Amino acid sequence: MTEISKYGEFGLIKHLTKDFKTANASTLKSIGDDAAVLNYGTKQTLVTTDLLLEGIHFDLTYTPLKHLGYKAAVVNFSDIYAMNGQPKQIIVGLGVSKRFAVEHLEELYSGIRLACERYGVDLVGGDTSASLTGLTISITCIGEADADKIVYRNGAKEHNLICATGNLGTAYLGLQLLEQEKEALKGITDVNPAFEGREYLLERQLKPEARRDVIAELNKLGIKPTAMMDISDGLSSELHHICSQSNVGCRIYSDKIPINYEAAVYAEELNLNIVTCALNGGEDYELLFTCDLKDYDKLLQMKDVYFIGEITKPEYGMVLVGRQSEEIQLQAQGWQSL
Amino acid sequence: MTEISKYGEFGLIKHLTKDFKTANASTLKSIGDDAAVLNYGTKQTLVTTDLLLEGIHFDLTYTPLKHLGYKAAVVNFSDIYAMNGQPKQIIVGLGVSKRFAVEHLEELYSGIRLACERYGVDLVGGDTSASLTGLTISITCIGEADADKIVYRNGAKEHNLICATGNLGTAYLGLQLLEQEKEALKGITDVNPAFEGREYLLERQLKPEARRDVIAELNKLGIKPTAMMDISDGLSSELHHICSQSNVGCRIYSDKIPINYEAAVYAEELNLNIVTCALNGGEDYELLFTCDLKDYDKLLQMKDVYFIGEITKPEYGMVLVGRQSEEIQLQAQGWQSL
Repeated sequence: MTEISKYGEFGLIKHLTKDFKTANASTLKSIGDDAAVLNYGTKQTLVTTDLLLEGIHFDLTYTPLKHLGYKAAVVNFSDIYAMNGQPKQIIVGLGVSKRFAVEHLEELYSGIRLACERYGVDLVGGDTSASLTGLTISITCIGEADADKIVYRNGAKEHNLICATGNLGTAYLGLQLLEQEKEALKGITDVNPAFEGREYLLERQLKPEARRDVIAELNKLGIKPTAMMDISDGLSSELHHICSQSNVGCRIYSDKIPINYEAAVYAEELNLNIVTCALNGGEDYELLFTCDLKDYDKLLQMKDVYFIGEITKPEYGMVLVGRQSEEIQLQAQGWQSL
Repeated sequence: MTEISKYGEFGLIKHLTKDFKTANASTLKSIGDDAAVLNYGTKQTLVTTDLLLEGIHFDLTYTPLKHLGYKAAVVNFSDIYAMNGQPKQIIVGLGVSKRFAVEHLEELYSGIRLACERYGVDLVGGDTSASLTGLTISITCIGEADADKIVYRNGAKEHNLICATGNLGTAYLGLQLLEQEKEALKGITDVNPAFEGREYLLERQLKPEARRDVIAELNKLGIKPTAMMDISDGLSSELHHICSQSNVGCRIYSDKIPINYEAAVYAEELNLNIVTCALNGGEDYELLFTCDLKDYDKLLQMKDVYFIGEITKPEYGMVLVGRQSEEIQLQAQGWQSL
């Protein structure tokens, strides 16, 4: 292992980013100056940021650093796609404590690089510094979009269809699996969870993908959602954002929420309600969007898009309709447990 | 004091940012969606980021939170000015441990707001999360510049004048003063440092300003530097960046380096060499730039700009000429002590 001090600050950034190539015409000047220089002629610029802290957002006991780098980048791309934009550049800030060696950071950056290559995004800057405690990752992503294509959270209208992609709650169950494994390894429990047949759950937690494909298909079909978000905190929380910002209500049908079979089996094993996992689990990085009814036929042609409910008048609030047609008022969850 | 959990994640951001108004035409959509939306018609976009960690970049024993917020914002503006651009938007990511209450974060944000108001910058997004240990601040700043006005680090040419603004080493001495006070308060030393007459040193450390005024004056006089940086890590380190990126050498005269009188007096008291403080101290956030000789007469009209040396052939390296005309090879310092 190589001590980080061998490189010093400037040498370290240079070393870690030497294999990153830029791919976008809008990237005029990348790493190596006070700021990156980007050119967005007639497009509009999108910017988003995420701060990931060890022990809060990730646990290095079971998160390989390469996966962590990949995920840290992809969750930012997801925010840009959720605006109906294309991610183009990222800037990475790292805080690193003494227990990390250069090889660890190389692993982390190899994941960031893989994500950048797959999604056609350029790394254009960064800041690396010492940290007293663990690893801190700050990623800012810049994207572009045509002015008339951007989809906000506040455009949902009564009678709009509510659509969700992929499956929900799966990333949360992947996390439960990893947590159980961690406890078993520590001897806290003697139930050693089987990973076999559950690789998909792990993948959803450790290496999520952003739904670039869905955005591309929407654009190809000429569908512009009226509101859109990525599902990072759980369906319930995201619905709350769209409803409150659009000043509307919603009705969601629990049997329409897309659920993965493996996830449902594992939830049952843990005595968890899979719908609750989907509503409050988070980290799925799927898309939630609302569309005008006129787009219904086109939406039917899309793979992996599910109609989960409809937008209502604001006075109806957020309603979940259960399997026995019982109605439950939805609560927004989120980060309440600081 | 108000527990942070009272607000929850979304409520907290809303609460902390409710008094921020946007001032720039390029800010189309601010906080409240997956990403901010910016419009840079024919201008080019500049982006820079900084990650500030408690215990590494700041010590809350002697740093008021309002000052910290102000400084965290201003040091990012400084990076944009150092490209000859204008800062326009910032995004703030916070990691906050349990020992902080809402009032603490309000203090921090009041400093950020003051900086934003003074410099005409819009806060357009953020991410706030729990932290296990202390306070983490990640700030990304977006700025704009005309394509032909941007000044990089790599344009310095032989015979160019090397200029520095303000005074150097002062912020470092302010830090020494605060550290001494901290030790005195702990009873580690019985020398209680006098702050009286040294308020300026403290101000330079706790509440630095970015040199917007110098950038405005350069533009007004029609001077475009050939290379420019802000002095955040110390003059020696910044000269190293400009020389290596421009593939040139430099000669700096120690008696030309701008020094503040109070700082010099305090350095002597501490048995420190004030020139060494200026070369390696850091955090001054002054500007270092190189100019063509043709601009000499115009530069003479500028307040607070000092000629400290000249650019030479690369084979001469980086040379410091001392008071007795002795020549010393300059070493780049920086963050070597991870």
